[in-house]
Amino acid sequence: MPLRIGILTGGGDCPGLNAVIRAVTKSLLRQCGAEVIGIHDGFGGLMGPAPHVRPLDWASVSGILMRGGTILGTSNRANPLRSEADAERTLAHAHALGLQALVVIGGDGSMAIAHGLSQRGLPIVGVPKTIDNDIVGCERSFGFDTAVATVTEAIERLQTTAESHGRVMIVETMGRYAGWIALEAGIAGAADVILLPEIDYDIDAVAAVCRARAQRQRYTLICIGEGAKPVGGERTVQAWLPDSPDPVRLGGVAHALRAALQPRLDCEVRATVLGHVQRGGAPTPFDRVLATQFGNEAAQLIMRGEFNRMVTLRDGRLGSIALSDVVHGTRQVPLDHPLLRTARQIGVSLGEPA
Amino acid sequence: MPLRIGILTGGGDCPGLNAVIRAVTKSLLRQCGAEVIGIHDGFGGLMGPAPHVRPLDWASVSGILMRGGTILGTSNRANPLRSEADAERTLAHAHALGLQALVVIGGDGSMAIAHGLSQRGLPIVGVPKTIDNDIVGCERSFGFDTAVATVTEAIERLQTTAESHGRVMIVETMGRYAGWIALEAGIAGAADVILLPEIDYDIDAVAAVCRARAQRQRYTLICIGEGAKPVGGERTVQAWLPDSPDPVRLGGVAHALRAALQPRLDCEVRATVLGHVQRGGAPTPFDRVLATQFGNEAAQLIMRGEFNRMVTLRDGRLGSIALSDVVHGTRQVPLDHPLLRTARQIGVSLGEPA
Amino acid sequence: MPLRIGILTGGGDCPGLNAVIRAVTKSLLRQCGAEVIGIHDGFGGLMGPAPHVRPLDWASVSGILMRGGTILGTSNRANPLRSEADAERTLAHAHALGLQALVVIGGDGSMAIAHGLSQRGLPIVGVPKTIDNDIVGCERSFGFDTAVATVTEAIERLQTTAESHGRVMIVETMGRYAGWIALEAGIAGAADVILLPEIDYDIDAVAAVCRARAQRQRYTLICIGEGAKPVGGERTVQAWLPDSPDPVRLGGVAHALRAALQPRLDCEVRATVLGHVQRGGAPTPFDRVLATQFGNEAAQLIMRGEFNRMVTLRDGRLGSIALSDVVHGTRQVPLDHPLLRTARQIGVSLGEPA
Amino acid sequence: MPLRIGILTGGGDCPGLNAVIRAVTKSLLRQCGAEVIGIHDGFGGLMGPAPHVRPLDWASVSGILMRGGTILGTSNRANPLRSEADAERTLAHAHALGLQALVVIGGDGSMAIAHGLSQRGLPIVGVPKTIDNDIVGCERSFGFDTAVATVTEAIERLQTTAESHGRVMIVETMGRYAGWIALEAGIAGAADVILLPEIDYDIDAVAAVCRARAQRQRYTLICIGEGAKPVGGERTVQAWLPDSPDPVRLGGVAHALRAALQPRLDCEVRATVLGHVQRGGAPTPFDRVLATQFGNEAAQLIMRGEFNRMVTLRDGRLGSIALSDVVHGTRQVPLDHPLLRTARQIGVSLGEPA
Repeated sequence: MPLRIGILTGGGDCPGLNAVIRAVTKSLLRQCGAEVIGIHDGFGGLMGPAPHVRPLDWASVSGILMRGGTILGTSNRANPLRSEADAERTLAHAHALGLQALVVIGGDGSMAIAHGLSQRGLPIVGVPKTIDNDIVGCERSFGFDTAVATVTEAIERLQTTAESHGRVMIVETMGRYAGWIALEAGIAGAADVILLPEIDYDIDAVAAVCRARAQRQRYTLICIGEGAKPVGGERTVQAWLPDSPDPVRLGGVAHALRAALQPRLDCEVRATVLGHVQRGGAPTPFDRVLATQFGNEAAQLIMRGEFNRMVTLRDGRLGSIALSDVVHGTRQVPLDHPLLRTARQIGVSLGEPA
Repeated sequence: MPLRIGILTGGGDCPGLNAVIRAVTKSLLRQCGAEVIGIHDGFGGLMGPAPHVRPLDWASVSGILMRGGTILGTSNRANPLRSEADAERTLAHAHALGLQALVVIGGDGSMAIAHGLSQRGLPIVGVPKTIDNDIVGCERSFGFDTAVATVTEAIERLQTTAESHGRVMIVETMGRYAGWIALEAGIAGAADVILLPEIDYDIDAVAAVCRARAQRQRYTLICIGEGAKPVGGERTVQAWLPDSPDPVRLGGVAHALRAALQPRLDCEVRATVLGHVQRGGAPTPFDRVLATQFGNEAAQLIMRGEFNRMVTLRDGRLGSIALSDVVHGTRQVPLDHPLLRTARQIGVSLGEPA
Repeated sequence: MPLRIGILTGGGDCPGLNAVIRAVTKSLLRQCGAEVIGIHDGFGGLMGPAPHVRPLDWASVSGILMRGGTILGTSNRANPLRSEADAERTLAHAHALGLQALVVIGGDGSMAIAHGLSQRGLPIVGVPKTIDNDIVGCERSFGFDTAVATVTEAIERLQTTAESHGRVMIVETMGRYAGWIALEAGIAGAADVILLPEIDYDIDAVAAVCRARAQRQRYTLICIGEGAKPVGGERTVQAWLPDSPDPVRLGGVAHALRAALQPRLDCEVRATVLGHVQRGGAPTPFDRVLATQFGNEAAQLIMRGEFNRMVTLRDGRLGSIALSDVVHGTRQVPLDHPLLRTARQIGVSLGEPA
Repeated sequence: MPLRIGILTGGGDCPGLNAVIRAVTKSLLRQCGAEVIGIHDGFGGLMGPAPHVRPLDWASVSGILMRGGTILGTSNRANPLRSEADAERTLAHAHALGLQALVVIGGDGSMAIAHGLSQRGLPIVGVPKTIDNDIVGCERSFGFDTAVATVTEAIERLQTTAESHGRVMIVETMGRYAGWIALEAGIAGAADVILLPEIDYDIDAVAAVCRARAQRQRYTLICIGEGAKPVGGERTVQAWLPDSPDPVRLGGVAHALRAALQPRLDCEVRATVLGHVQRGGAPTPFDRVLATQFGNEAAQLIMRGEFNRMVTLRDGRLGSIALSDVVHGTRQVPLDHPLLRTARQIGVSLGEPA
């Protein structure tokens, strides 16, 4: 009897999800003739009320490598561990579907759920997913390169306008707890100031950079991660609250910086919040290759019976760690990271006091 | 003695400005050996206190065709007609620089100033500039194709995320008084609903489209021009007020629509405001060709001594109209425009009551 | 009983075919509840031996607007007019399928076949398709803007390398009988020399431009249409011959120019032949809008019973002409076209003797 | 007295060269107030007859991060070690210019020259440069990611056309001795067959894949590195020979494969040779970050006096190796590389016998 393996995507959208789904499916179909069952809408499609699934064959995953989003849909709300009844129903559905194992592609929240379900007897292989590149134990995750490319292109567009008008332009990127996107896109887009959640910024130091540049280059481009805050300030960014009729708006960080900078400067200061465009679109070739490797590695773990582990990339090598060891935390930019040093050495301000 | 011609760019940034500057300069240098004087920061560089200029030669305009922004800088504040003293100083500077004529690349505001200066004796040729494609008398202006491409790409990114999450996604485009960008990018990006300043939308009709789609396609993409408003509502969009320490924020329109839609729907509604990225970046090949033709045509008008006219494109042909005939107004989307009809016929909602 | 309408795509691939298929289908489904039958592989799917078709519904055309190629497949070999038997079988199949009319999306070859079939009693509406933009009676066809964008991007890439090495770079574009692609992409890519089928080039004039530029700008970029030839020379370009085991290779033109130029110059001369990449890929937003309008217009003609006509664009307006009036010929670049004049006036060489 | 440091770019063009020049210059200017001397046209600008140089200051390197090519020009001919006289003149010029050290950005050929000059007393720091990603001791070089992205985009364009016509499409990539570009772009572009210099292909195995796909998916896309060859065959690719009036043409490999495949198949086979476009254009954000780090690292080596070493990247970490240890060889794809295994496991053919 062939293997019967489920696969789902959980949490926020991320370029490369389809590439993982495709690689898992092709690898399982080709190597062991498994039946692959796609589960819709994250854990929601397994939790019920009834399972929401569809079989995945060769044709289902043809042509999806370069498409953004996920053909299975996702959800960042469904949580089978919220109640005992939900957990039991979820496991019952997995059993009724005849799933011998489940591939979960998701962030640290999804991995925590995966760990919980695996402890209740469902064999699981996890694939890390985060555009923020901040999952502990995985040095580079798919979707991040695409997000950096999207932000870099936006910075380039803003730069020509900033230069034409002699303005200070602020662009706010994703990265609630880690500054990887702002850091790499800031370097790649030739930002003059890069502000990260990891380094509280000094508003007077930022203003000083803008004033100095106004003399020579006329304009300044500031790239700020949505989790950054001034020295002594509080984090103003807040998540969209899906259950609320009136969710808090993104962009608090850029607009707060704008309000603080404008009175200190003679030129105009403008803010742009990139928002959801950072999560969408076709993955870059780099991300397609990485996601394909992650997906294939997950299939190998399945076939070798190495369950309750998450695929990882460390020191440039694919491997895996136990789901129980996936730290529920955030891989921030270390303060001694070479790229921070590079930024300072070529003259990019990190908002630190002079 | 060679001709001595000034050139300046006024108003907001627009992809293709450098292509015009390059074509004017190359054409004048090559055909009549003119001296071309670039004026910095729009009318501000001529108004003073002292003139701010630099000579443009072959090398100055080499390699700028594909670059966004303007090598001369621009300003949407400087107005030499604000006072008699300003006007006189401006004309005195033009005289002192030995300018026999001036090329003004700008929007309807700049053309009004150009007309005023021409009446005071400064020979001027105007080149229309608007990413909104809304200058009366010019059926297609450079920068518009690029703005449409930028918005379309953003819509595509948002669409994959909307689909993955089963959401309603709202994207707000530029176009304060005319809906051209929202209309063309909406069609090109396969938006399900397109809301324009020209057609007040019915919030219940919009909600009905979202609900119907939620059954079949799971998600809805709404493209809204920043000047759109609901039936009976007031325009909520407001300009950035540069002189104010706390300018009004763009995005009023998208967020107002979001607030009105969310209570009517079961799924999540999210809004993205594209903002300044629409003004920047390298012009598309289409815009490079159009801007090059506009710039060359301006040079021909100069050489033929046809002053105080603005280059135009009508029925696909280059021509010119008197600056005095440039209507200070907005070329809106006519309600019988074929593209509106096409939209309706292929099933795109324009927010009209059923 | 609902209308039953067939649709097929004939001839070479072209970006925007799917956009036309989608607009025809959506418009017919929505406005008159027609049944739309997609025919595979151009006229081949109707000619047989047996018909090869599939019904097109709302879901079939969802998400295809931005995809290159054609979901129906195409063929540039199948010709139902080759023999009486073929023609009769084709019409018999159309009758058996219950087709009341047929939409044919294709070039001048396909329109000639469409005309022949319409004379034998099959009601047809044609939609012009050519990346070369050379169908008589249609001033702008979908796919052309995309081809120009692809070529322009390639020119930009080649330019940085030409400049770094101080070389002459030749890039060969499509356009066997008309130089539109080479002309617009040459202008948009800042080519120094543009050689078209319409103007035989003087090799010494071309060499002189390269030598003059070698002094100042170090490099020269030449954009040549595949149908161009030297004064007194013969056309060397030849089609791929599909029935031959060893088809003639594209690129004859670029390599012939290279061979003629190299002995006349001190620097290196290199040639790149872009080939099939010019036919593929996602259509630009401009082409998506144009193709959508063409498709919708074809549906309107069907519904109004205006058969045996081809959709056209003239003076910026959609319309139609009788299939019998579609001239079997090529819309070349007129020698007095404004863009040729612009090119000369800004200093681009068209290979004409000095 | 400030440091006086020269910098040059040698060998073929590569995206990211300007990013390295910018980082070296900014880092040296900012950290030790060095004078930075740009040397034109690779070693040619130092070798003479007279030195061809220009000082690089903050303004010289502003805005070049995202530009392809090299502002200094390059040469793959100049070799100061060709004769004793050349070497002495080169060193004399370096001395006359007061250079305390030289940064050489180049491939393994340039590093061999750098090593030779360093042995004669000129302190040198090398920065590895290769779009082929094949320098021994450096696991990822700038320019490679951009080349992969360019090739991937071309594959995507060709794929839509291949699918529309039911063809076999062959695309030839760079990579004379190493298959990295073909491998990564093949995976990222969803090629069905990937042929590398490292694995001689079996023509019958390739034909069998095409035939099997013709039944189900209609088309096949083959990505072949320019150094690949059939089992028992000879390498047919040859370099452009710059000194020859009639250089050998690139594309031998793709056209040879085409000629061998066509008689074995019923459908049409077409070949596209991408050529020089793979060397040009703006670097991807990934390459900008990598090149910036390489450039800054070179500046640190200079300032720490660690001469006659080349910057490297190993296990994800920046470091350096002695120029004398830079193996004059090629870093090929190891036959046990995980990406080869991944390719096979998801069903990509590497041209190996079944």
